[in-house]
Amino acid sequence: MFHKILIANRGEIAVRIIRACRQMGIKSVAVFSEADRESLHAMLADEALCIGPARSDKSYLDIERILSAAEASGADAIHPGFGFLSENASFAKYCNECNIKFIGPSSDIISRMGDKSAARETMKNAGIPVTPGGKGVLREADEALLEAGRIGYPVMIKAALGGGGKGMRISRSDEDFTENFMNARREALNGFSDDSMYIEKYIENPRHIEIQILADEHGNVIHLGERDCSLQRRHQKVLEESPCIAIDADLRERIGEAAVKAAKACGYVNAGTIEFLLDKDKNFYFMEMNTRIQVEHPVTEMVTGIDIVKEQIRIAAGMPLRFKQQDVKITGHAIECRINAENPEKNFMPSPGRITNLHIPGGNGIRVDAHIYNGYKVPSNYDSMLLKLIVHGDDRQEAIAKMRSALGEIVIEGPDTNIDFEYDIINNEAYQNGDIDTGFIERFMQL
Amino acid sequence: MFHKILIANRGEIAVRIIRACRQMGIKSVAVFSEADRESLHAMLADEALCIGPARSDKSYLDIERILSAAEASGADAIHPGFGFLSENASFAKYCNECNIKFIGPSSDIISRMGDKSAARETMKNAGIPVTPGGKGVLREADEALLEAGRIGYPVMIKAALGGGGKGMRISRSDEDFTENFMNARREALNGFSDDSMYIEKYIENPRHIEIQILADEHGNVIHLGERDCSLQRRHQKVLEESPCIAIDADLRERIGEAAVKAAKACGYVNAGTIEFLLDKDKNFYFMEMNTRIQVEHPVTEMVTGIDIVKEQIRIAAGMPLRFKQQDVKITGHAIECRINAENPEKNFMPSPGRITNLHIPGGNGIRVDAHIYNGYKVPSNYDSMLLKLIVHGDDRQEAIAKMRSALGEIVIEGPDTNIDFEYDIINNEAYQNGDIDTGFIERFMQL
Repeated sequence: MFHKILIANRGEIAVRIIRACRQMGIKSVAVFSEADRESLHAMLADEALCIGPARSDKSYLDIERILSAAEASGADAIHPGFGFLSENASFAKYCNECNIKFIGPSSDIISRMGDKSAARETMKNAGIPVTPGGKGVLREADEALLEAGRIGYPVMIKAALGGGGKGMRISRSDEDFTENFMNARREALNGFSDDSMYIEKYIENPRHIEIQILADEHGNVIHLGERDCSLQRRHQKVLEESPCIAIDADLRERIGEAAVKAAKACGYVNAGTIEFLLDKDKNFYFMEMNTRIQVEHPVTEMVTGIDIVKEQIRIAAGMPLRFKQQDVKITGHAIECRINAENPEKNFMPSPGRITNLHIPGGNGIRVDAHIYNGYKVPSNYDSMLLKLIVHGDDRQEAIAKMRSALGEIVIEGPDTNIDFEYDIINNEAYQNGDIDTGFIERFMQL
Repeated sequence: MFHKILIANRGEIAVRIIRACRQMGIKSVAVFSEADRESLHAMLADEALCIGPARSDKSYLDIERILSAAEASGADAIHPGFGFLSENASFAKYCNECNIKFIGPSSDIISRMGDKSAARETMKNAGIPVTPGGKGVLREADEALLEAGRIGYPVMIKAALGGGGKGMRISRSDEDFTENFMNARREALNGFSDDSMYIEKYIENPRHIEIQILADEHGNVIHLGERDCSLQRRHQKVLEESPCIAIDADLRERIGEAAVKAAKACGYVNAGTIEFLLDKDKNFYFMEMNTRIQVEHPVTEMVTGIDIVKEQIRIAAGMPLRFKQQDVKITGHAIECRINAENPEKNFMPSPGRITNLHIPGGNGIRVDAHIYNGYKVPSNYDSMLLKLIVHGDDRQEAIAKMRSALGEIVIEGPDTNIDFEYDIINNEAYQNGDIDTGFIERFMQL
């Protein structure tokens, strides 16, 4: 097992990893920027090193400074957390070249999964369903109509050079296809002086489903069930839960098997997440793979009882997985709300500043992952997440009731927050009915 | 289900019950004394009524005022929490006479279990092991020697009128019995002018084990495994855990069955706790029954996933238990530390006053049940408990590591606390080895 781990991150995830290290008897080294001198992660770790100014490119993204800090402190492993250098293949490579174990997959896998179109090809070749797309450039309406029929409606008609919605049409049947195609092609020609068109399957308001996988160095790969992360605003997740109520045991097994196959197809090692789109007919399509811990990993921890960060560390140390697929049981229901310093009334403008009053809810089935404290000044330099409020209940209804109760108790004074926004979602009837998809937040905000 | 529950208590347990009500969609009514105007329980509840001055006998112990508050607010049930009126048979009776459901067992059962010697008789008659005692008064050494042999060594020789250690001797074998008996009898005669003697089994440094039971109105009784509450200072529990590492599956089944039998023997309904002494040879003896929720109930909740307060409410509402004995699974290990405003250096003198800085630890498997907040003034009128820190790990070792990590993070400034005292226990080798009994804290404090 490692002797000392450097955490190349900040905020809540750095605190999360430091706690895991402490509980495993491993020394922790925090790195912090000048803007983070009073950050909890710097105070909690066994050692803390300032690595540069507030600007991320001069600190949290500076590979050389981080590796120097690791060497100076004698760390034998680095946990990258999420964001920053966590999916930087060069960083993983340099770590290993310095004989410092990168807690994550190999540099090679990070590269291959980072190139989204290459990842899609890898998965397609491995037999994982990907969004059906056309065979290439199309110009003639007749030929395109055949292609659309092959893919299956609805389809998205797209200008090859398109963007900003121009030269794009959705077609829902043979009847409206030709007209839509001709209109899109005309727009493309006018807009881009090019009438090359593509067709791909249009997944209408899908759910964003992701499967957590764990893979060790000995060829064992398991999945920990799914998370429903459909509630997103501009591709930022707002609220996540596990399990997804649209997924039954049979579908869980099939999508879980696909995820395990995907991980095996690329020789994946460590914790990873396979993101899928799930359509209304319960078809799922590979979207991408995230080769790091996710912000929303706690909901999986709450329903499986498995500590994913500790498993990451054990896997990186070469240990085989301690459980098999059949040992993984999903118990109850967990929900996570991301509480951010931002103002939903002002287009979610970030709202940094000093926390003048803080009250954190507690009790049975309430988990808080935070890096803030009373009197802490939230810096303006980084993302605006203040804490993650995670609840676990016997079922979805109880989890919702716990989240409502906890959101009602929490007090954060100083910065503006999205607490009321999350509270309104939790109290929304469509949400409570589980009627959610990636279009939910947009519809919700129009109310 | 109830419409509105009045919580006849204060502090952490009142907050605990209010949260359960909120999550179940039941309105909550807090009552508070003048000293508790700024108490969290008064702020969190849907309604809050002042019921009198700081003195408990004029507020939290005043049956008339509490029943008036319940009638004024239209509450249809009262949860008594622990302490105060929770084991007051008259209170339970008056509640029911006012058509307000008392969330606990009947007045009759509270009386019967409250009389400790009557409870012992009830249990003995039901075939539950109780500490073996002599048949009655003994005066002759020969007769006493036979009795001691029947009970089994070690035995405690006691003057019938004894007290303060006078006329008491421990005998460990036939060889030393007669001399000890004669010495004790002489002391008794000198001290109390009476040589009536008793003998009972002496349980040497036992573990204090308690079994949580749930019993509904339909005759269903189950147990939720045991808690090891051996760590006590002057009969106040300091740290509790579940399961007890000295209890294997077979013993758990036997002691659990005895507890269920005990509950059935007295026709018990609602949540209750049967306390046993467990000797070094794994014999267990009934001590007493607590007819209310216990401070340490969360460790059982953490390992079983069952919310005991919610079950209390469901049972009181006449609902049958939702699970059978075989559905109850013990998963992992939980530990609770009671954090008090007291100074261990000054003989644990209470240390009330304003909390000037508060930082509560969080993360995976960390639960905090508290009623304090930043700026809260801990009143001098009530018990000194500030919060309960509860951790859950895969096994005892991980739970210990989590507790150590969490105790290292917690910050409470203002009142003195026993945080360091608890931290030292957790780091104690004997504790870590599970080498604990009711003599542990005394030995620990001598170090």
